[in-house]
Amino acid sequence: MSEERYSELRDYLAEVWDLAKVGGLAGWDQQTMMPPQGASVRARQLATVSKIVHERLVSDELGALLEELRSYGESLDYESDEASLIRVTRRDRDKELHVPAELREKQTRAGAEAFPVWVEARRTNDFELFRPYLERNVALRREYAACFEVDEPYDALLDDFEPGMKTAEVREVFARLRDGLVPLVAEASAQEIDALCLHGHFPIEAQREMQRVLLSRFGFREGTWRIDPVEHPFATSFGTSDVRMTTYYPEHEMRGIFAAMHEGGHALYEHNVDPSLERTPLCRGTSLALHESQSRMFENLVGRSIQWWRWAYPELQRIFPEQYEGVELETFHRAINKVQPSLIRIEADEATYSLHIILRFELEQDLIAGTVDIAELPNVWNERMREYLGVEVPDDSHGVLQDVHWSRGTIGYFSTYALGNVISVQIWDKVLGDVPDLYEHVERGDLEPLTAWLRERLWRHGRKFTPQETLERVVGGGLDPEPYLRYLNEKLGVLAS
Amino acid sequence: MSEERYSELRDYLAEVWDLAKVGGLAGWDQQTMMPPQGASVRARQLATVSKIVHERLVSDELGALLEELRSYGESLDYESDEASLIRVTRRDRDKELHVPAELREKQTRAGAEAFPVWVEARRTNDFELFRPYLERNVALRREYAACFEVDEPYDALLDDFEPGMKTAEVREVFARLRDGLVPLVAEASAQEIDALCLHGHFPIEAQREMQRVLLSRFGFREGTWRIDPVEHPFATSFGTSDVRMTTYYPEHEMRGIFAAMHEGGHALYEHNVDPSLERTPLCRGTSLALHESQSRMFENLVGRSIQWWRWAYPELQRIFPEQYEGVELETFHRAINKVQPSLIRIEADEATYSLHIILRFELEQDLIAGTVDIAELPNVWNERMREYLGVEVPDDSHGVLQDVHWSRGTIGYFSTYALGNVISVQIWDKVLGDVPDLYEHVERGDLEPLTAWLRERLWRHGRKFTPQETLERVVGGGLDPEPYLRYLNEKLGVLAS
Repeated sequence: MSEERYSELRDYLAEVWDLAKVGGLAGWDQQTMMPPQGASVRARQLATVSKIVHERLVSDELGALLEELRSYGESLDYESDEASLIRVTRRDRDKELHVPAELREKQTRAGAEAFPVWVEARRTNDFELFRPYLERNVALRREYAACFEVDEPYDALLDDFEPGMKTAEVREVFARLRDGLVPLVAEASAQEIDALCLHGHFPIEAQREMQRVLLSRFGFREGTWRIDPVEHPFATSFGTSDVRMTTYYPEHEMRGIFAAMHEGGHALYEHNVDPSLERTPLCRGTSLALHESQSRMFENLVGRSIQWWRWAYPELQRIFPEQYEGVELETFHRAINKVQPSLIRIEADEATYSLHIILRFELEQDLIAGTVDIAELPNVWNERMREYLGVEVPDDSHGVLQDVHWSRGTIGYFSTYALGNVISVQIWDKVLGDVPDLYEHVERGDLEPLTAWLRERLWRHGRKFTPQETLERVVGGGLDPEPYLRYLNEKLGVLAS
Repeated sequence: MSEERYSELRDYLAEVWDLAKVGGLAGWDQQTMMPPQGASVRARQLATVSKIVHERLVSDELGALLEELRSYGESLDYESDEASLIRVTRRDRDKELHVPAELREKQTRAGAEAFPVWVEARRTNDFELFRPYLERNVALRREYAACFEVDEPYDALLDDFEPGMKTAEVREVFARLRDGLVPLVAEASAQEIDALCLHGHFPIEAQREMQRVLLSRFGFREGTWRIDPVEHPFATSFGTSDVRMTTYYPEHEMRGIFAAMHEGGHALYEHNVDPSLERTPLCRGTSLALHESQSRMFENLVGRSIQWWRWAYPELQRIFPEQYEGVELETFHRAINKVQPSLIRIEADEATYSLHIILRFELEQDLIAGTVDIAELPNVWNERMREYLGVEVPDDSHGVLQDVHWSRGTIGYFSTYALGNVISVQIWDKVLGDVPDLYEHVERGDLEPLTAWLRERLWRHGRKFTPQETLERVVGGGLDPEPYLRYLNEKLGVLAS
């Protein structure tokens, strides 16, 4: 009887998840393929899908089913797919119930409408064009936060991306991070490192080939993925065997390969969720910080390591002979790890990156609290960039307009990037403990021992466990910025020597 | 009060249509972008969307709304958007009510699962691989036909693509067509026409450019369309300003440009539906035959005319200088109009094309009636090709496996292609009557007078009127194969002289 009910739940959720994924596809298409004039109708379509998904999550039918299954779920192994699906769905539904469908729909539509305006505003360096859209997005996020009982409104937003995380906790971790980073950045950025080899002319076709060479080592199953150019790279999936990465090909800088490896890390997580979780809400990464820990791991811990480049550098030289024939591996490796305070978050090195995040984390709290006037946001941004990173922002395209997130209404998201950095090294240290010859494999371009470890310990579980439970299972403890600071200190020390 | 109800209907249908379009996007993506291993989950997603669309069309809520609006609809001008939306939705819903949701879902899923198998079967020339999938599709179509009270089961299938059309009527039109075509093909194919200039090496990039040059004259609004390569070209749209054409680039034949112009004709129809009908079920062409009349018009009446090539040929010579510098326009024009019985429908000339269709129309009736064993289908196909076109089929990839339709379960569709040919000339003659200097414009690459006429008389109305009403409005009568036969006779006579 309970098994029948469970099978009903499974079918019900499969439909919801199909819809959500098809909506996700419409979002992917919007950024990769859609002719620009399709934007306004697409916004309505996205809003409709999101509304229907919401309706089905809050339906009485689902509520009754979950109630009937409560004791069944509790009777099962906590770690089983069945218990997890019942437990997580109940939590999702409870959260969803707090928010009126119309508000969700308004948010989705506002985000879809703001996105192309942001693209244009950034292109033409015109914050005023974007401002009314940002104001609407902020107002809607405030309205959203007001639906929840929380210690502070920002908690409600953070919880969307990092369930269970409190703003206060992030503040504390970020304070320790900042205290560690400031002297480290000061010291490292004083080093004279020649990064000229990262600039030049890199034909798009050759970049495409290099990205494919690198991703070919990530262990994706054949015929399950693709990668397309976009304004702002992201990764998503519409099934564990339909994984979409995006990237860019800046023609004058060797940056696209790091975007590709970053999105490759995200994609691996979604790709390796256990197929038994397909078409369920458990079939994705458990939180954005955990997700980001994977993208950062493949971008930085693998992708900027000397060991990886011992394998990959000959490929780079083959594909870009004019650029790299006369450049030593060590010169290239030093260049890709150069610490230098700069304007653009996604171009920032590993050490300064988290300072960009801390700035956004603070500004978002101000926006939600209403303690900063949005018309003044560019000025506040520019002041804080001077204060934290010591750089002058020349225009808003290189300042407050640089990130896609606020155009989509995703406020509360940024901090997960820096938390991802922190977690990436916590996990990496664990892998190294279990696989002592990890770097020897990496030197041969062999990521199999790494991906096998991550698949078994992290990826396959999808969203069965909360971020806290997951972290506990994978590293045996909570958030800790020390391994990350230690890693950076060591790495930058070696580079300097 | 009625206006409020109408506005409810409008909102209700907008959601249904949003869903249908997002489902359409998932179908487009499946053929253009999806990694092959995504197929099985995608099949489930498509089935889910189609099930929900169905549920919403047959819902009691919609039924009650339409009942409440009945007298309001009848009080309005028959041609108004409002009266049309109420009327057409009621008709759609009545038809939808005849079919159980599970059957529709099964059909969609079966089609999505069969499609990649068909791709593989065609590639490897393996009918047996495809056979069980085709058997399932045929069985499901029979089950579908049994849901309706019709003179013969095939009527139910035909009605999906050509509402109101009867199999008997098509048989009669096709008999007249065949009687006209057989002697015409015999005479024309006896002519010695040198078509060597259509074979050679045509680099994909250059083909892409040529297709863009041609389509640039079709009058699409900027930023509203794209064209991508696929196995079997088609066109679709996700809004009047988000139009997707597909094409192919066969490297050794000058054929892709005709596929592009064909799909361009389809795309223009969807693109030019009045924006007031956006996000309603009226926002598309009224039937497949009418749709095909537009694709055939742009592929053949425009795209194979000497006048069009007086403008386009210098472009072709510029883009493929090695191939065409030494070839006279008249030689090229004769080659693209050469009549020669051949194996592949989509490669067939204007004159033999309809014979390919008549063969399929007959076989489909046999399949649905069960008078042909599916295991025997390749043999029957090959025999009839010999009988009707006098050609020997060397393998199933060039025979029964050549078309995508049956893999999707779309049986009942083919005849609309030949009906489209017939209608295309009926309409063309009307345009010529109103725009006597049409060909002078075409000679300058100026299609504006043509597209303006079609937009005003046909395209903008979308699906407001039935195919019969539409034909009556546009050409002042019903189906008539004579203009088409006369056009072919004249054209082929001129080529021979």
